[in-house]
Amino acid sequence: MTDAPHDDPAARRSGPEPEQAVIAALLQGLDAGDRGLVDAALEELHAADLADLIEQLGTDQRRALLAVIPPDTLPEVLTELSESARDQTLALLSPETLAEAVRELDTDDVVYLVEDLDAEDQARVLQGLDPEDRAVVEQSLTYPEYSAGRLMQREVVTAPPFWTVGQLIDWLRAAEELPERFYDVVIVDPAMKPLGKVTLGRVLSARRPVTLESIMDDDPRVVRVDDPQEDVALAFNKYHLVSAPVVDAGGRLVGVITIDDAMEALSEEAEEDILRLAGVGDEELSDGVLDILRRRVPWLTTSAVTASVAASVISLFEDTIEAFVALATLLPIVAAMGGNAGTQSLTVAVRALATRTLTRYNAWRVVRRELMVGVCNGLIFGALIGTLGAVFFGNAMLGPIIAGALIANMFAAALLGILVPMTLDRLGADPAVSSGTFVTTSCDVVGFFAFLFLATAVLL
Amino acid sequence: MTDAPHDDPAARRSGPEPEQAVIAALLQGLDAGDRGLVDAALEELHAADLADLIEQLGTDQRRALLAVIPPDTLPEVLTELSESARDQTLALLSPETLAEAVRELDTDDVVYLVEDLDAEDQARVLQGLDPEDRAVVEQSLTYPEYSAGRLMQREVVTAPPFWTVGQLIDWLRAAEELPERFYDVVIVDPAMKPLGKVTLGRVLSARRPVTLESIMDDDPRVVRVDDPQEDVALAFNKYHLVSAPVVDAGGRLVGVITIDDAMEALSEEAEEDILRLAGVGDEELSDGVLDILRRRVPWLTTSAVTASVAASVISLFEDTIEAFVALATLLPIVAAMGGNAGTQSLTVAVRALATRTLTRYNAWRVVRRELMVGVCNGLIFGALIGTLGAVFFGNAMLGPIIAGALIANMFAAALLGILVPMTLDRLGADPAVSSGTFVTTSCDVVGFFAFLFLATAVLL
Repeated sequence: MTDAPHDDPAARRSGPEPEQAVIAALLQGLDAGDRGLVDAALEELHAADLADLIEQLGTDQRRALLAVIPPDTLPEVLTELSESARDQTLALLSPETLAEAVRELDTDDVVYLVEDLDAEDQARVLQGLDPEDRAVVEQSLTYPEYSAGRLMQREVVTAPPFWTVGQLIDWLRAAEELPERFYDVVIVDPAMKPLGKVTLGRVLSARRPVTLESIMDDDPRVVRVDDPQEDVALAFNKYHLVSAPVVDAGGRLVGVITIDDAMEALSEEAEEDILRLAGVGDEELSDGVLDILRRRVPWLTTSAVTASVAASVISLFEDTIEAFVALATLLPIVAAMGGNAGTQSLTVAVRALATRTLTRYNAWRVVRRELMVGVCNGLIFGALIGTLGAVFFGNAMLGPIIAGALIANMFAAALLGILVPMTLDRLGADPAVSSGTFVTTSCDVVGFFAFLFLATAVLL
Repeated sequence: MTDAPHDDPAARRSGPEPEQAVIAALLQGLDAGDRGLVDAALEELHAADLADLIEQLGTDQRRALLAVIPPDTLPEVLTELSESARDQTLALLSPETLAEAVRELDTDDVVYLVEDLDAEDQARVLQGLDPEDRAVVEQSLTYPEYSAGRLMQREVVTAPPFWTVGQLIDWLRAAEELPERFYDVVIVDPAMKPLGKVTLGRVLSARRPVTLESIMDDDPRVVRVDDPQEDVALAFNKYHLVSAPVVDAGGRLVGVITIDDAMEALSEEAEEDILRLAGVGDEELSDGVLDILRRRVPWLTTSAVTASVAASVISLFEDTIEAFVALATLLPIVAAMGGNAGTQSLTVAVRALATRTLTRYNAWRVVRRELMVGVCNGLIFGALIGTLGAVFFGNAMLGPIIAGALIANMFAAALLGILVPMTLDRLGADPAVSSGTFVTTSCDVVGFFAFLFLATAVLL
């Protein structure tokens, strides 16, 4: 490793730019069948870059790229793929290649690779593992998806509390294989219950005769194997954890979660919320047309049904519209203002619930504040659009009518935008999935009704 | 530390639940003026819990809580506050208390606390620091907000390449003060240019005579001090980094970013995108009504203007609506379907751009796929709603008219939902901020025009 000339590290930037040139060269080499160019490029790229590239390529180019990735790089590349790209890519590989690949991996990565295979393929791939690893993988697959048990790695560095720093260092130096990533040593009792945690920084700065017990954090945050990954990720971010011991129902250590896995889980969960708010479920960029339709059509169906409810409000007032057709022109403005104001309140509420920042200590204050905002917005836009409407249509009465509708609308948007997600959350439903169309349609209904009712009363 | 009885760690869960009882006790103690209860509760809570609680309380309760937090806990609590809560809370503290607090903190935390104070208060607070720390803080404040320079800590453990593991360990044991969090040792040349990085796990498992040069990663990812924090956070997540050396324009080491800071930046950036997509800017739950209005009114104004454009399309066809008032009833359905389909495409595109997964290698495939989805959605919902509309209104011709409108609408939604954010991104604008209303309004315009044009042609 030391014989290689040192690159100028300043040339290696954190941004995605420097890899772009290498990726372009790789694809050019693949196209031209220039193996030298391809191998030089592969040498330069991180497994994560190759995984990203696979996700972005079509099937033919994917196949060509998979054929040239060296067998010792392939396993790591596969573990870096997103779920949908992983499933598509595994389908392109022979069971033998896959069985070969999993033998190189940590058990948590094996679990990620095989979790969605059908039972037969799964068995065939796991046959390649030695019996002990296979047992560990099979055990992990019994934990629910998106739980701490799936997120953790089984390889943990542990030590008894009475060991000295010197004993630990000697043991580490003699150890044949250590986990790829470990930042803490978990101190356990003979029954494997965690007693504490010592950071490696602390081990390195203590003298050899010091006991681990005297330098350990004796009250570390511990994760239960069935905790949802979302809670684990939030706890890592909140308490600045770097690793957390995972225990089973009996309190015995079964694994450890490290911050890089928690970081990935946190970004997955935020991503999921964004996509759910927009009604696209867990869509990935590498999904096919049918997958996408399967995810998007239910939401559009809901919005068709709820829009019909809003439409039926309008049909109550057909006579009024027939008499004053200008009213039809103003309907989309009423709908747009209510919909956008509702989405604003809703999004703030959904995220505050997801990050556990909306609690019983501030709920009432937040609701009151939203209502104030709703009233202010109603007054501002009621005055503005009311004035413009009255001038444009040359009918002074139209001003107060649309202003009244907007005030009702914006107030409903504020009220429902905050109360609907809070209620769903209390009922145990995911507010990100189900609030959207309900809130915007309700605003439409309130707005249309107020608008056309006022118009009927005043103009007819 | 060892004298304290060991808690049963299994009782300490990763979820937010166990803290809730302690927080309730704390507030009860504050209300009742029961100092014993308050102090017992404060003992149990992490600074991050106290910060979260401060964010959730009203001003009076905040003041009461701040008065009882012990002076040695207060500094850390302040650094855990979100930006808006931080500014509100600092305003409740005397400059002396604050100057006292910053003396306890790492320089990066001091920077976070004082960055938004006005120049006079800033100077007063920084006077409390020793001259060396003050210089470091003042230097950091010159880096742009949300850059690597603001995210990094200045305290770095470095070593020359020719040191042995034994020398490093002896030096660490003798060091008076080490950074609170360090996971790697940065290997530097005499000009402080980083040559490599050694993880602490590697140091601990190597024997004393081994040189650092022979076990270092000689091609570590290095961050430039002016890199945006978003790029840094994405790189940490993609490459599973735990720390990254930060260098200045001359390639000299100036600090280090650790994964916990990167994790926080990543979740901040995702949060920002969610809120921007909904048109609420960088709103926080502890913002006041005026702050909220300032963030939300511009978006609503934009949507009022764009909705007026859609309205003006309708006004072109007033005669048709007067003749067939049922058309007015169907307008909100056309608007809702186009708006929701556009939001779906748009959200997927915005997030794919933010996470750098939409690139020139898959752009064309993704656009083509969206168009296919748009056509399919148009056919599905055109057939469905067309049939229902024809039956409901007892007019067979209404079916094909609304079906045609929905096909045009959904196609426009797909096309604009993907092309608008891609274009904005290429122009260097943030697609999350500016795409929303433009896309949904354009869908409305296309849908209304197609619907009313077809109706005029067929029915009149």
